[in-house]
Amino acid sequence: MPDSAALTRSPMVNPTPIPTPPGGVFDGARHLYAVRVYYEDTDLSGITYHANYLRWFERARSDLLRMLEIDQRAAIESEEGAYAVSEINLKYLRPAKLDDDVVIETTCTELGAASCRMHQIARRGDEALCEASLRVGFISLEGRPRRQPAPWRAAFHEFMTKKDT
Amino acid sequence: MPDSAALTRSPMVNPTPIPTPPGGVFDGARHLYAVRVYYEDTDLSGITYHANYLRWFERARSDLLRMLEIDQRAAIESEEGAYAVSEINLKYLRPAKLDDDVVIETTCTELGAASCRMHQIARRGDEALCEASLRVGFISLEGRPRRQPAPWRAAFHEFMTKKDT
Amino acid sequence: MPDSAALTRSPMVNPTPIPTPPGGVFDGARHLYAVRVYYEDTDLSGITYHANYLRWFERARSDLLRMLEIDQRAAIESEEGAYAVSEINLKYLRPAKLDDDVVIETTCTELGAASCRMHQIARRGDEALCEASLRVGFISLEGRPRRQPAPWRAAFHEFMTKKDT
Amino acid sequence: MPDSAALTRSPMVNPTPIPTPPGGVFDGARHLYAVRVYYEDTDLSGITYHANYLRWFERARSDLLRMLEIDQRAAIESEEGAYAVSEINLKYLRPAKLDDDVVIETTCTELGAASCRMHQIARRGDEALCEASLRVGFISLEGRPRRQPAPWRAAFHEFMTKKDT
Repeated sequence: MPDSAALTRSPMVNPTPIPTPPGGVFDGARHLYAVRVYYEDTDLSGITYHANYLRWFERARSDLLRMLEIDQRAAIESEEGAYAVSEINLKYLRPAKLDDDVVIETTCTELGAASCRMHQIARRGDEALCEASLRVGFISLEGRPRRQPAPWRAAFHEFMTKKDT
Repeated sequence: MPDSAALTRSPMVNPTPIPTPPGGVFDGARHLYAVRVYYEDTDLSGITYHANYLRWFERARSDLLRMLEIDQRAAIESEEGAYAVSEINLKYLRPAKLDDDVVIETTCTELGAASCRMHQIARRGDEALCEASLRVGFISLEGRPRRQPAPWRAAFHEFMTKKDT
Repeated sequence: MPDSAALTRSPMVNPTPIPTPPGGVFDGARHLYAVRVYYEDTDLSGITYHANYLRWFERARSDLLRMLEIDQRAAIESEEGAYAVSEINLKYLRPAKLDDDVVIETTCTELGAASCRMHQIARRGDEALCEASLRVGFISLEGRPRRQPAPWRAAFHEFMTKKDT
Repeated sequence: MPDSAALTRSPMVNPTPIPTPPGGVFDGARHLYAVRVYYEDTDLSGITYHANYLRWFERARSDLLRMLEIDQRAAIESEEGAYAVSEINLKYLRPAKLDDDVVIETTCTELGAASCRMHQIARRGDEALCEASLRVGFISLEGRPRRQPAPWRAAFHEFMTKKDT
């Protein structure tokens, strides 16, 4: 049984803290989230494959929702709806390489009833690697635009109007 | 040994043709390339994950280069350079689902010394699912813009000016 | 509108056949399916990233199901169940590189009530690149083992007992 | 310019710490590394797509190498060589769902001149989700087996023989 060891390991004998997945931080009206470049992100040209920035940006937005206490999984399971990207404009500025530390900055630039616009930048230190402007719509599971739940919209509004710390 | 059977199979006893990977076709100044939606393309909302259209579009562009007799792998291995997306604007119009047949149409809208602009649409039958406008630059392996090899530029030019069949 | 051109294109003026996605072929009790190596498949070491063989093998199995007239999407949408890999043993024998043509051979080695065992090999010409032995179970959408629908089992049985052509 | 704001932001005015990417921890002769399940990891059946565990396991191994001060990128850039999976046996025990916190435990079970064997388990709390036994070989960039650099082998040896804390 693969987890018998885990089950019998006493916390007194083994106090090493179990690591938790990465989480972002708020910095005023910005959300910051870090990724490291792994093998899976690169292609044979030695740099991050262009589509993989979309995966990083989505992780950062999912983390932002989590920090705003918006439960995407419950909303899908209850068939309430889901956020979906309807438009995204990407600029690739500099390449990212294996083992680079990259920080994704996310801001919300416009909030509507059924959608919002966001801006995201991937940076390595002070260098911008890729930036994205996007529109995310809230949709029913059949794909129709739907008003965002009021508490979710309120959470976005509060995020957008945060003061710089 | 896993391939002993293959090595000893006589073509007279076994005339089934070995399948070849999908290839696109030219239709005038358009390149058409087909994909099917597999499990790997979908996410838990039941539709194609938005980043995966970038993979499909890239496959279509790679196939276009192959049909224009532009050998990307040789160019990378000889350190001549590579094409890289520098800008892409995507609109998501309708969702794609498991097992859908999708055709990617690619046209080249502008040809420069070191770059070109392209337009790509993913369609299921007559329905547009996603469209992209993009700028692709030719770069050295250190990431600097570089003039496209003259025969490659000529091949693009010939593709762009093809008459409808 | 992106697809007005498509809608107004007359088949008489434009007889270029729309390409269809790749499909496999049966060769006796083997299913053969071809893929080409694209940028997305490679990593910075210049060869196919090891996890991507699992995506290729899954495409081939999905194509096999399609050819056996097993409709995975309908079975998920009707909540009947889905096939899921429960065990897979992989051997990496030789690397695959950009633009390589790879053929996936799939055979079914054992058929049970709720599962089957398969063997898959990825080959480039006569060279085996990667081989997999796997167990696939039919499960309810809650993840419990479930008997395969009788017609599906019959289709697998017919596939396994095909004579070489 | 997208990063002018970053460049002029004074650390005194903006003391929010920039987040760093996730890193693992050592717990005796085990390495622990955490991931969260994102949209990209799931497929339409609602759970993590089977190939994506290989990506998680590889991230954990890369993090282990980083913590052992083995610089993979430098070794590839200097053409010294790279680690590559030559064999992996996977068992899928329970599904992982969106937003789950998953910890990857990695141990090294055998150390040879040119290869090592490892065991990895993905757990959610006390539940094992997926386990892998694998063989990783050190190879030249042409794909030939090669002795691991002596300091790297020593680092692995030290890791394997750590006492529980």
